[in-house]
Amino acid sequence: MFNRVAIIGLGLIGGSLGLALRQARAARHVAGFDLYKQVVDRARKLGAIDQSCASLAEAARGSELIILATPVGAMRPLLQQLATLASPGAVITDVASTKAQVISWAEEYLPATISFVGGHPIAGKETSGIEAADATLFKQCVYCLTPTKRTSPAALEKVAALIDSLGARMRFLEPSEHDGMMAGVSHLPFIAAIALMQTTALNPAWDDASILAGSGFRDMTRLAAGSPEMYRDICLTNSETITRWLADYIALLSTLRDHIATRDLNLGEVFAQAQKARNNWQEAQEQTKNSNPK
Amino acid sequence: MFNRVAIIGLGLIGGSLGLALRQARAARHVAGFDLYKQVVDRARKLGAIDQSCASLAEAARGSELIILATPVGAMRPLLQQLATLASPGAVITDVASTKAQVISWAEEYLPATISFVGGHPIAGKETSGIEAADATLFKQCVYCLTPTKRTSPAALEKVAALIDSLGARMRFLEPSEHDGMMAGVSHLPFIAAIALMQTTALNPAWDDASILAGSGFRDMTRLAAGSPEMYRDICLTNSETITRWLADYIALLSTLRDHIATRDLNLGEVFAQAQKARNNWQEAQEQTKNSNPK
Repeated sequence: MFNRVAIIGLGLIGGSLGLALRQARAARHVAGFDLYKQVVDRARKLGAIDQSCASLAEAARGSELIILATPVGAMRPLLQQLATLASPGAVITDVASTKAQVISWAEEYLPATISFVGGHPIAGKETSGIEAADATLFKQCVYCLTPTKRTSPAALEKVAALIDSLGARMRFLEPSEHDGMMAGVSHLPFIAAIALMQTTALNPAWDDASILAGSGFRDMTRLAAGSPEMYRDICLTNSETITRWLADYIALLSTLRDHIATRDLNLGEVFAQAQKARNNWQEAQEQTKNSNPK
Repeated sequence: MFNRVAIIGLGLIGGSLGLALRQARAARHVAGFDLYKQVVDRARKLGAIDQSCASLAEAARGSELIILATPVGAMRPLLQQLATLASPGAVITDVASTKAQVISWAEEYLPATISFVGGHPIAGKETSGIEAADATLFKQCVYCLTPTKRTSPAALEKVAALIDSLGARMRFLEPSEHDGMMAGVSHLPFIAAIALMQTTALNPAWDDASILAGSGFRDMTRLAAGSPEMYRDICLTNSETITRWLADYIALLSTLRDHIATRDLNLGEVFAQAQKARNNWQEAQEQTKNSNPK
């Protein structure tokens, strides 16, 4: 059991981590800090934290585990400040969607007495903020850890204990490997959703067409409702791989456009391949869930 | 109340129409026909039809309303045959996702004694087939009708009565206007989903990356699981407008790719615009539903 955990950033992920940790009785004391005082107070009222802190210093002091649950962009100054504010022996982990950049900041700023372990729980909702926090958000989700050769086994063990208390499934990856794969299965999808939303909403026919948009459109644009700041920070810190995946996506769309323009009868086979790939993925997902009934 | 309605094609839409019509007691007798005998038998067992017909002729005979609920591609030969098989005075309607092509076939093949009204209920599920049929599928959905100057008011009235019995919301559109708008809000989304599924599944990293794919990926590829035949027929019969929308989508994606490649800090504003457009659409949808609590 942790003596004292600090959560920095009390949005959907930070708030849900607090709720989950407290419900699992995995920490004696959970301290919380956020840029907005009303968010910290709300997190306390909702039971996500035991203590509302007025500063990063107050939250960090004496915490053996410090979880950064802010947008990626905020993590750089936080790590710079924690270099002096965190207690010697503390372990810092983060939940950012991109890992290489955060890890390079941590290795640049933190002294040898403070450990860092990059983490990323693959969990989310289309709603954000402390009000959306949910103690079960991480149950059975994949929680990536991206240790480097500088990560100490003791620090890794602490973060593994955190993940275990959340009921999540741990997975180890190289930081660059993580970022490359997430660019394909997470970052490309939100860009595709945003582009679809903009393509339709900027069309002169949108006022009338919007009434005809059904459940397919709803699902395909759901991600466009996500946090613009979070998406921007992801793009800024994972620019190269996202650009590569986007080029692949655009190339495939261009090929499809050519097939459609020429009324190619083989379109059905291309669509059948995609259907098969989607069904295979869905089946594999269900099998994994059934084999891990936590 | 209809005396006799025939449903041709007993998949998700045809089966759901039968269930809804019978539960609303809107027809004294519902006859059904499908290319596959076991589907017709299953539809009868599930209560979607009163009579399993062994041929199109048997289903059409004496029916005052004939509903074509097959993929678009099958409608051409069906309309050719119904020109002689349908009883004089019969009204034929369809449920295809594209309207201009079907209407031109109907106007080419049907004699003046048989009326045609193009229709399109905007309802669906990711699962298809008679087993997925659902009597409530059309409740509150938008049901487009695309009458032309050759459509008789009496025929239109019959199809309006059908829509009313389903609890759907009727909307009149020009066929080309319907096809142009649906290309944006329905056809472009399924192509975007298929392309995303293929871009990721064809990548060498897919085996590992697929494990990291979460709820965003799931929603963004759900449409890729839809019927390849239906999608192909939609693309073949609405090729021009889909091609135009795809060009717009590709252009917007290319612009985003350039912003991401150059780490443009203004990305957040573009994403915020998309978020706003998505939230506005969602609100409008909810308002419409609340003002039509059928």
